[in-house]
Amino acid sequence: MDADPAPPAAEARALYDFAARLYPICRSITGAGVRQTLGLIRARIPLQIHEVPTGTRVFDWRVPEEWNVEDAAVLDPDGRRVVDFQAHNLHLVGYSEPIQASMSLQELSPRLHVLPEHPDWIPYRTSYYSRSWGFCMRARERAALRPGRYRVEVRTSLAKGSLSYGELLLPGRSREEVLFFTHICHPSLANDNTSGMAVATALAEWLAREPRRFTYRLVFAPGTIGSLTWLRRNEPRLSRVRHALVLALLGDPGALTYKRSRRDTSEIDEIAAYVLAGEGTTVPFSPYGYDERQLCSPGFNLPAGRLTRSVNGGYPQYHTSADDLTLITPQALAASLAACRRIVEVMESNRRFVNLKPKGEPRLSARGLYGALGGAGPKQHEHAMLWLLNQSDGAHSLLDIARRSRLPVALLREAAAALESAGLLAPEPEPGISAPRRKRPARRAANSKQGRKKP
Amino acid sequence: MDADPAPPAAEARALYDFAARLYPICRSITGAGVRQTLGLIRARIPLQIHEVPTGTRVFDWRVPEEWNVEDAAVLDPDGRRVVDFQAHNLHLVGYSEPIQASMSLQELSPRLHVLPEHPDWIPYRTSYYSRSWGFCMRARERAALRPGRYRVEVRTSLAKGSLSYGELLLPGRSREEVLFFTHICHPSLANDNTSGMAVATALAEWLAREPRRFTYRLVFAPGTIGSLTWLRRNEPRLSRVRHALVLALLGDPGALTYKRSRRDTSEIDEIAAYVLAGEGTTVPFSPYGYDERQLCSPGFNLPAGRLTRSVNGGYPQYHTSADDLTLITPQALAASLAACRRIVEVMESNRRFVNLKPKGEPRLSARGLYGALGGAGPKQHEHAMLWLLNQSDGAHSLLDIARRSRLPVALLREAAAALESAGLLAPEPEPGISAPRRKRPARRAANSKQGRKKP
Amino acid sequence: MDADPAPPAAEARALYDFAARLYPICRSITGAGVRQTLGLIRARIPLQIHEVPTGTRVFDWRVPEEWNVEDAAVLDPDGRRVVDFQAHNLHLVGYSEPIQASMSLQELSPRLHVLPEHPDWIPYRTSYYSRSWGFCMRARERAALRPGRYRVEVRTSLAKGSLSYGELLLPGRSREEVLFFTHICHPSLANDNTSGMAVATALAEWLAREPRRFTYRLVFAPGTIGSLTWLRRNEPRLSRVRHALVLALLGDPGALTYKRSRRDTSEIDEIAAYVLAGEGTTVPFSPYGYDERQLCSPGFNLPAGRLTRSVNGGYPQYHTSADDLTLITPQALAASLAACRRIVEVMESNRRFVNLKPKGEPRLSARGLYGALGGAGPKQHEHAMLWLLNQSDGAHSLLDIARRSRLPVALLREAAAALESAGLLAPEPEPGISAPRRKRPARRAANSKQGRKKP
Repeated sequence: MDADPAPPAAEARALYDFAARLYPICRSITGAGVRQTLGLIRARIPLQIHEVPTGTRVFDWRVPEEWNVEDAAVLDPDGRRVVDFQAHNLHLVGYSEPIQASMSLQELSPRLHVLPEHPDWIPYRTSYYSRSWGFCMRARERAALRPGRYRVEVRTSLAKGSLSYGELLLPGRSREEVLFFTHICHPSLANDNTSGMAVATALAEWLAREPRRFTYRLVFAPGTIGSLTWLRRNEPRLSRVRHALVLALLGDPGALTYKRSRRDTSEIDEIAAYVLAGEGTTVPFSPYGYDERQLCSPGFNLPAGRLTRSVNGGYPQYHTSADDLTLITPQALAASLAACRRIVEVMESNRRFVNLKPKGEPRLSARGLYGALGGAGPKQHEHAMLWLLNQSDGAHSLLDIARRSRLPVALLREAAAALESAGLLAPEPEPGISAPRRKRPARRAANSKQGRKKP
Repeated sequence: MDADPAPPAAEARALYDFAARLYPICRSITGAGVRQTLGLIRARIPLQIHEVPTGTRVFDWRVPEEWNVEDAAVLDPDGRRVVDFQAHNLHLVGYSEPIQASMSLQELSPRLHVLPEHPDWIPYRTSYYSRSWGFCMRARERAALRPGRYRVEVRTSLAKGSLSYGELLLPGRSREEVLFFTHICHPSLANDNTSGMAVATALAEWLAREPRRFTYRLVFAPGTIGSLTWLRRNEPRLSRVRHALVLALLGDPGALTYKRSRRDTSEIDEIAAYVLAGEGTTVPFSPYGYDERQLCSPGFNLPAGRLTRSVNGGYPQYHTSADDLTLITPQALAASLAACRRIVEVMESNRRFVNLKPKGEPRLSARGLYGALGGAGPKQHEHAMLWLLNQSDGAHSLLDIARRSRLPVALLREAAAALESAGLLAPEPEPGISAPRRKRPARRAANSKQGRKKP
Repeated sequence: MDADPAPPAAEARALYDFAARLYPICRSITGAGVRQTLGLIRARIPLQIHEVPTGTRVFDWRVPEEWNVEDAAVLDPDGRRVVDFQAHNLHLVGYSEPIQASMSLQELSPRLHVLPEHPDWIPYRTSYYSRSWGFCMRARERAALRPGRYRVEVRTSLAKGSLSYGELLLPGRSREEVLFFTHICHPSLANDNTSGMAVATALAEWLAREPRRFTYRLVFAPGTIGSLTWLRRNEPRLSRVRHALVLALLGDPGALTYKRSRRDTSEIDEIAAYVLAGEGTTVPFSPYGYDERQLCSPGFNLPAGRLTRSVNGGYPQYHTSADDLTLITPQALAASLAACRRIVEVMESNRRFVNLKPKGEPRLSARGLYGALGGAGPKQHEHAMLWLLNQSDGAHSLLDIARRSRLPVALLREAAAALESAGLLAPEPEPGISAPRRKRPARRAANSKQGRKKP
């Protein structure tokens, strides 16, 4: 695959601008904000949008009633909107039920959530599955409230409707799939997760332009209930998932962080560790976080990792109003997208090959692949060919060879192409992949038994 | 299992007092001292005492003649008892044959064993299988002996009799056994091994009061020939031994030391390493030491570790009269007993579980197991439940989960109980264990195939 | 095996003198120089010399025309031999085709190879498979050439002939083979590889005098085409190769370096790492170097390591005229030979044993193998016996036991012999090995099932 032709600065700016467009929308796990969000994404990539009715059984869960907000405020004894949903959608606890009431400040107090340690930030709270209502506000503003009777107005609806999610399928030569999963349920939180949506959308655009060995599936869905719904509806197809990657928190200035799959040694774990070496870190699996929780539950155990910059709970602004558009940067978004593309490039090229001349070294110089004059050492490209020929017994992937040889995947990929052209190397056939472009030489059959001898 | 209700200080004192009662007795691999020792232990726990006749074949060995001592002394030319068994039973080489003789100091000299580097300590020596006699004495006193004729009086008997050992069986729900092995053949050496006998006896009292998953067997026997005899008589039952632990040297001020089994990765090796982390060390297996030598011989290869504080040969007073009641402390004995109990607690709780709702996370909040308000992170107990649900595919034990999650076993045990009560988790059935107390939900059968999918 | 009786200083001198005799010969991959070299070696060991005709197919290669040199020089405008093969055989590019011509310095220039960074050294270059000619010279002398017409005289022959290699077979009790491979194709380069030839020849002399468990095969052949030819002609026998070791660069002052086999965990990798511990290093496999490239190609994947001091390309004089007799020392050659012998000794003694009394410890003292008086700790020899008895379940080799016990192989070998004599230990039968010298006790059959129980 080729590098994206868009100039980096313009690409970075475009990522940021899209995140900024998504930022103000009041999203939740259902409702108009989710649909508006999916609509903006569909304007760029041909997303298929699914609506799953309220009440649909999803494993141990049910799709909840759809929640929509008309308005919400707390009015002080003077009638001023001292907590105002119109000013910031984080002010309202997610899935608050409708209420119109007057009460004393003392009665109201347990419904007012604050962050004492950050008096100017509004916390983010939800109550999806336990009917309730509440408001979130700055601790400094909470402290300024005088005793008296307050008016509470929550004009929301909780009613039969549906859960919405979007899905894009980009078929490749193989029926094996790479799944990217992005949560779309958080309201005005920039890093969590307008950053993930912006990167995933741009990644989809790039993937659509590239030749593809694998089939790619990008899912934009609410967290937890959305991923569970997708899993339930796609259960028969899960065995096709070769790699899965959850994308979130991709705009903050923290270093890239890959969270390993439950399996810990999935191919994607090795690929991501390779790609991030030097510019990021990997952290072990844990069953808390984003939708990897569901993808990696023991009944599915998908090879699913997660790419973020900072991790959930790993920065002070997390789940507060300070996770705003000043926290994310065009550069961080662009670097995250670039890492996703490099991960895809390694996935695509991570084949196993068979040396078609496995007994001794073949004559590379006779095929124009090697310098003719002996005595001086070989060059990097020649080393790459020697490593490929030596390790290609069908058991070692390109990434295995990259790690053993300490040569870059990109160099090995080029060398493999040269050796394939010369009839010295052939990719191992893979389950579910259509015929390779290059016809395999007839002598392969005779040699392959030797070539596959295991070390 | 609950913590022992005895107040720690009283428990520590009781351990020390029992060691002190055992200390003066002249023990060997057979004879009256062994029987007296077993009698004192049987006064506290219902020990079954076995007598195995002299001459009984035990693999490559035979039960030796029984040895008893009436008196032994060396008298100087003035008739003074310059080496006197009545003063310290270490003065007589163990299994010395009877002799009445006079001889010059020069003739006697090779029979007088001393420790030049510790002139005030009496060494401990034996000659079980090669008929001989001898005395051990302080180097300082040896140096004071004047030339002349000495009278040697060894009034011992070596005659047909029997080898004695004691055994306590505490049945549990499973026929699988945990074996504790303590050697009882050393004379007046406090750490080696009145400490082990005192700790093992108190451990047996505690085990007798506790509910037991496993069957526990405590053996109090002479070293080497005693463990070989027990192995010979119990050979058909050895396949039931799930864990074995040799207890010795548990009263000195050194840090707790666990010696790994020959297998090196036995479950007990993992359990002891977990329990001792932070307060003790583990050392690799070696075929020299106490009865782990026999339990871990290649023909048995039992999963047998050893718990000591200092190791054999690892402290200067080892196998000398300086291993007396000043070397051991109530606090060290109590800490050793506490470590044994914690090891038992982890053994008992180290089950494998199956998540009965393995597809996605089940709704914990709907079952009152999880805070209702979203947005803030979960607490330790909630993390423990998430880890248990995620890892419980039948392949991971509680200890495996503790190590991967870095959560304490005790917390996971509580969380597992909560999940079991809620019908979300079930223990894997184990060979030889009777039915669990809690009836398994009917839906288990349908889900278990998925739940056992290996990572 | 016993240590070589030759006094070290004399041995070291003899190694150096033989390397010095080989040094001046103009070797290549074929031709008179190779035959002269093999003749000098055959004067010491009964080498069988093979001649393989030009044109013989060898996997992807063919045996090339034989190359011989009568004379070669470049004459300056004054008729002086400014580059003179008679002065140093490195002056002529290996396999240069014959030419008689006059040309300007400018025309000649691309044929004159120099090392700008080492102006007084002549580089070593070859052009085996691409017809060409050329000269190598000191950069300082090249800079002194004045413009003008130069005469080129290359009086070589390239004609049907044969490739020569030598082979020595030293049969042992087993048909399993240890293969030593030494390249003989480099002209006047002392370390590369008169050092390897000198060490391999002396090693063969020593092996011929020793009792041998394995069959030893020493091959002296040209690099690449020589090893390929040997592999082609011996393909049906390759399954007998238990260990293979390429010997090269064994005279320079660098530390000994073992290059691991492609398999990375071959027995020889473990043996060499054990032998070199403390005095040398091991480096990972790579598919560039000497004939391990061919032996470890995926179609053969032999357990082949390589022993050098400095590695190829790892010292500045490599492949230049500065790799002369001042670079190598008698001491380094002798130390290399000694390492080879120690490797052989460990190979020979690295048996697996079975404890014939696997249940509990056998009575060592009753067999005179252990001190009679108990209480004090055992000595090294006694520890060695305990380790052997404990680990000898047929699964652990002597080297495995050495590494686990941290006892020397030599001590364990002696202890194993004592235990074998006492009927307590028997070597595991090996495929392809003739009956051991010592009759196995009859009771072995009954006990062996227990003894082989795996840990």
